Amino acid sequence: MSDTLEVGKKLVELCRQGKIMEAVETLYSPDIVSIEAVSSPSMPARMEGIAAIKGKSTWWEENHEVHSAEAEGPFPHGDRFIVRFKYDVTAKAGPMAGKRILLDEAALYTVKDGKVVHEEFFYNM
Amino acid sequence: MSDTLEVGKKLVELCRQGKIMEAVETLYSPDIVSIEAVSSPSMPARMEGIAAIKGKSTWWEENHEVHSAEAEGPFPHGDRFIVRFKYDVTAKAGPMAGKRILLDEAALYTVKDGKVVHEEFFYNM
Repeated sequence: MSDTLEVGKKLVELCRQGKIMEAVETLYSPDIVSIEAVSSPSMPARMEGIAAIKGKSTWWEENHEVHSAEAEGPFPHGDRFIVRFKYDVTAKAGPMAGKRILLDEAALYTVKDGKVVHEEFFYNM
Repeated sequence: MSDTLEVGKKLVELCRQGKIMEAVETLYSPDIVSIEAVSSPSMPARMEGIAAIKGKSTWWEENHEVHSAEAEGPFPHGDRFIVRFKYDVTAKAGPMAGKRILLDEAALYTVKDGKVVHEEFFYNM
């Protein structure tokens, strides 16, 4: 099994279990670059380094009640793979506090030396 | 509406209708580069130019009976978008002739000057 496929399968399994932080800690490179489709005043689109990504994951876990998490894939191609996510969540804080949101997105990951070094998020529109 | 989102929405609409060739003819650049996740003896992974892509589309249409075609998206990010496909088909020729196949894949498209210039396919594994 290639590194890419193995990392992709583990990431999908952990995301289905809601274990985002465990996925980051076990599968991500210290030099991870993470790029959201959009930026906000409180969150830049581009974040670099494992500390920043752990911070984002902590923010996600502390500020969202997750009703269900679906992850389909991985869809591998060379050293990259795609995962398609559907998160049904209620925001706990911020302008969306109390609102139930369906996050419908795809993510494109790049693997190097057995670790995720790059992730980009694409939102369904 | 950005070029990327507009092209993505049209492509999804045409694919849902099974109009692959119309999508290629109306939305693709003459210099399109198309990359499958795997190559086969009869089909290289990388194909370049609108003539080659039309040839591939003709091969697809002539050699597959399509029972259903699902396309989710587009999921845009900058000048790229992802579409997630599920095709339920029966192959008409080749080693899979007569076999019913569920193709479960995602595609990553790049748009330049309002046309698709690059497409890559990722298969669910």
